Amino acid sequence: MTKVETSGRSRRFQRLRARRENLAGSPVESPYVQLENPYPPLEILSADEVSFIDASAKKLLQEVGIKVLSAEARAHYRQGGAEVDKESEQVRFPSEMIETLMKPVPSKFSMYGRNPVRNVTMGGGVGGETSRVAFGTVSGTPFLSDLDRGRRDGDKAGLIELAKLAQYYDVIHILGTLIEPLDIPVKMRHVETVRCYMTHSDKVPFVRSQRRQEIEEAVTLVRLIRGIDEDRLYKEPSCYTVVNMNSPLQLDELMAQGIMVMAELGQVVIVTPFTLAGAMAPVTLAGALTQQHAEALAGMVLAQIVKPGTCVVYGGFTSNVDMRSGSPAFGTPEYTQAAIATGQLCRMYNVPFRSSNVNASNAPDAQSAYESQMSLWGAVLGGCHFLLHGAGWLEGGLVASYEKFIIDVEMLQMMARFFGNLVVDEDSVAMGAMRDVGAGGHYFGTKHTLERYDKAFYEPILSDWRNFENWSEAGGETADVRANKIWKEVVAKSPDTMLEAGLEEEVAGYVAKVEERVKRDTKKSR
Amino acid sequence: MTKVETSGRSRRFQRLRARRENLAGSPVESPYVQLENPYPPLEILSADEVSFIDASAKKLLQEVGIKVLSAEARAHYRQGGAEVDKESEQVRFPSEMIETLMKPVPSKFSMYGRNPVRNVTMGGGVGGETSRVAFGTVSGTPFLSDLDRGRRDGDKAGLIELAKLAQYYDVIHILGTLIEPLDIPVKMRHVETVRCYMTHSDKVPFVRSQRRQEIEEAVTLVRLIRGIDEDRLYKEPSCYTVVNMNSPLQLDELMAQGIMVMAELGQVVIVTPFTLAGAMAPVTLAGALTQQHAEALAGMVLAQIVKPGTCVVYGGFTSNVDMRSGSPAFGTPEYTQAAIATGQLCRMYNVPFRSSNVNASNAPDAQSAYESQMSLWGAVLGGCHFLLHGAGWLEGGLVASYEKFIIDVEMLQMMARFFGNLVVDEDSVAMGAMRDVGAGGHYFGTKHTLERYDKAFYEPILSDWRNFENWSEAGGETADVRANKIWKEVVAKSPDTMLEAGLEEEVAGYVAKVEERVKRDTKKSR
Repeated sequence: MTKVETSGRSRRFQRLRARRENLAGSPVESPYVQLENPYPPLEILSADEVSFIDASAKKLLQEVGIKVLSAEARAHYRQGGAEVDKESEQVRFPSEMIETLMKPVPSKFSMYGRNPVRNVTMGGGVGGETSRVAFGTVSGTPFLSDLDRGRRDGDKAGLIELAKLAQYYDVIHILGTLIEPLDIPVKMRHVETVRCYMTHSDKVPFVRSQRRQEIEEAVTLVRLIRGIDEDRLYKEPSCYTVVNMNSPLQLDELMAQGIMVMAELGQVVIVTPFTLAGAMAPVTLAGALTQQHAEALAGMVLAQIVKPGTCVVYGGFTSNVDMRSGSPAFGTPEYTQAAIATGQLCRMYNVPFRSSNVNASNAPDAQSAYESQMSLWGAVLGGCHFLLHGAGWLEGGLVASYEKFIIDVEMLQMMARFFGNLVVDEDSVAMGAMRDVGAGGHYFGTKHTLERYDKAFYEPILSDWRNFENWSEAGGETADVRANKIWKEVVAKSPDTMLEAGLEEEVAGYVAKVEERVKRDTKKSR
Repeated sequence: MTKVETSGRSRRFQRLRARRENLAGSPVESPYVQLENPYPPLEILSADEVSFIDASAKKLLQEVGIKVLSAEARAHYRQGGAEVDKESEQVRFPSEMIETLMKPVPSKFSMYGRNPVRNVTMGGGVGGETSRVAFGTVSGTPFLSDLDRGRRDGDKAGLIELAKLAQYYDVIHILGTLIEPLDIPVKMRHVETVRCYMTHSDKVPFVRSQRRQEIEEAVTLVRLIRGIDEDRLYKEPSCYTVVNMNSPLQLDELMAQGIMVMAELGQVVIVTPFTLAGAMAPVTLAGALTQQHAEALAGMVLAQIVKPGTCVVYGGFTSNVDMRSGSPAFGTPEYTQAAIATGQLCRMYNVPFRSSNVNASNAPDAQSAYESQMSLWGAVLGGCHFLLHGAGWLEGGLVASYEKFIIDVEMLQMMARFFGNLVVDEDSVAMGAMRDVGAGGHYFGTKHTLERYDKAFYEPILSDWRNFENWSEAGGETADVRANKIWKEVVAKSPDTMLEAGLEEEVAGYVAKVEERVKRDTKKSR
């Protein structure tokens, strides 16, 4: 697996890890640290159909365009060659502008974790090279839920617990925002959340799209904790943001800031239109995909105008609503098809593809699992490079569920194992063993089995394979109840901090400075 | 969809269906009656690896062979060119024998339901033609389980309830045995089960591999109920059996009878080795697949010796055990890989591929759903033509669960929808609608939406997409609890019989005759 550099910082992390007694999943040994999807992507659209959607999206951008609520962004678009209508704030794109601006987009790039073993390669799969896959946690949920404490507002304590879970499992490569901690003052949330993420995890964190100053402060804190200077940060993307286009065909001020400021700082921008077919997008999947494509291109192009070559990712989120109630649905067959089609649209531009592990269930039950699997397979078969909401998403994204987090980790680890090699050679075909055992025997105690059994198969963390009698006697716990026990164990044995004492003070000092700045601003605005 | 012939029998069925008021899913309108998988199969093995496994399996059959416990089968094998060792009962296959005998195997054939709309095409996918997919119910479980009555021995009442569920949902094409009805005397079970299946369903039934006379009587009953003569039955396979090789490398008397008698009668033989890696097969997946391949070929070849061109299906069931406890596991990543690899081995011989929807959970919970999905996707991506255990399987096949049945129907219907076409054309790309709605609007009330909303998306039978508040107020039921209500509704509104009065008497008469024969035999053997 990935070799660990023995720099000073890295050695500190090795000591930290050594301290975490009984904490399994050390990244040095784990098969989950870097994943490759060896399967060629599935194609649901013909080449002509992909071209038709692309051409239609560009026609839409040319004839209708998008409404951009940020004056700064409109100025950038104008400078990049777009026509801007001052009154309507509508931005229209000449036909060749998109293609020209999308050319320098990297098809593969690295994101840098605080711990070098957490560096993530994003993209690949072009021209026969392997396609990398990274899994991220749930992101952006206002509510929290677990079987003991029920459903409640997101808070800092919950954010810390989820960050510990995210850190513990190596199959989680990247942090989402996890939840919205409502007990942290709004004006301090941008730095306090980053402090939480990075105190409890050494994986690449999320920075929200917000006002310029807030983004800059959050990214500065990421840089301080990584212990690097601005030049290096600019060359080593160390955090990312997700920009949700305000579908249909609109980009608001904060989302525009997210694109522009993160691009300026050399960080990663994921553009994800929220195209729910039947609500914010046409009821036809082809229509919703066309709109998604137009919006994604418009967003990624802004990043390229600000800084050509900005590392951007195309986020596919097209799903459908329940036409009887208007409720959003996720992990539907239409969602799966849209994910696969989106992969094809991404490959047209050689841009990395982000998808999600989503469902619309209200409980960590069978529905949550089968809808998640439908979205997971859509992502994997679509050749997705980054799966956000990989663990913990419930209720269509309103809730981060602790139990679903564990269920999802199990599903992600199973998928990671599915990416593994099925070895076919003289040794694995085991002709000798079959000859020895012959007819009617068994392989339990054979030499061939004993030499291989401990690494032969995926070992689950959650699935219970005992027979009914043993399972019943032990309490007859369903998967959600078992998941409840697991997350509590992990949280309990996770370290209180992953920051060294000196660094913790440095972080506190920076956060205090931001607090002073916020106080000054509040006074001014009174 | 499929047109309904208006023969006398068919008209009777139309009347029957018309009687079933409020019973949705009429096959005439249902999109689930005949399914095609439009996606090309995934390949996990290189062509060389497939050839190596095939060559190794044939080498195993040549050098080690299989132990055949039936003298009649050994005689057939000898006549077909195999070397038979009288003392060890070992049958060895000269290298070219397998390939020669497998040549007349049909790559695609029809199975005939009592109702012509229930006819099923099995196979396809060779040379650019579409690949057909049929889903079958759970099969062979000794126990029954539902949330109200708990876990209990299989009985006739349960068999009838499950047959009603199987009949109700058009996405179920073929019946498995469902359960073992322990309250029906063993010696009458072969005809009583067929009577149950066909009284409550017009879909293709399963006939167990058992003694010659029992198979013949069961098939005769199928023929009587279809109302056809022996010649027509011979040309129109109207039932099937599943032969489990007694892995490793053994074929017992009853299983051999199943192959020989069903082949003689022109019915369908599915040969499924039970190759659990680490227990009855090598711990390496390649080894387990090699053994599976050898056993499947040996079984299918027997059918070809008895009647060249017999409709056979290659059953892939390779999974692994939990190496800590020896418990069988299903829906593991290794299972998924094995299913995909098995599809490649089937295509080498152009023989239809049977797979399964399986899991090892003890409850209809999240584990049951994610393991099922792993096996379902293995089947679909492997190009499977017949999915047995499609609905109702729990506890590694020991239990038929009513709630899991409904959960599975939902998953199968989602998969059926995933097989549907993603239409990309001027109309579906909806440029006009997007122009009309413009930036920041919504599509809820637009003409484009209203004209299409009722058929735009898959409508679930089980998934609950309400928001948390509405869901909680309505009782906060998880998927298993909702499934419990659904199956009870379906059973309650299903007809008491699907046989006309005259036919019911005819069936009763034949069963009485068999009962007399059984009594005579019992007397004789005293």
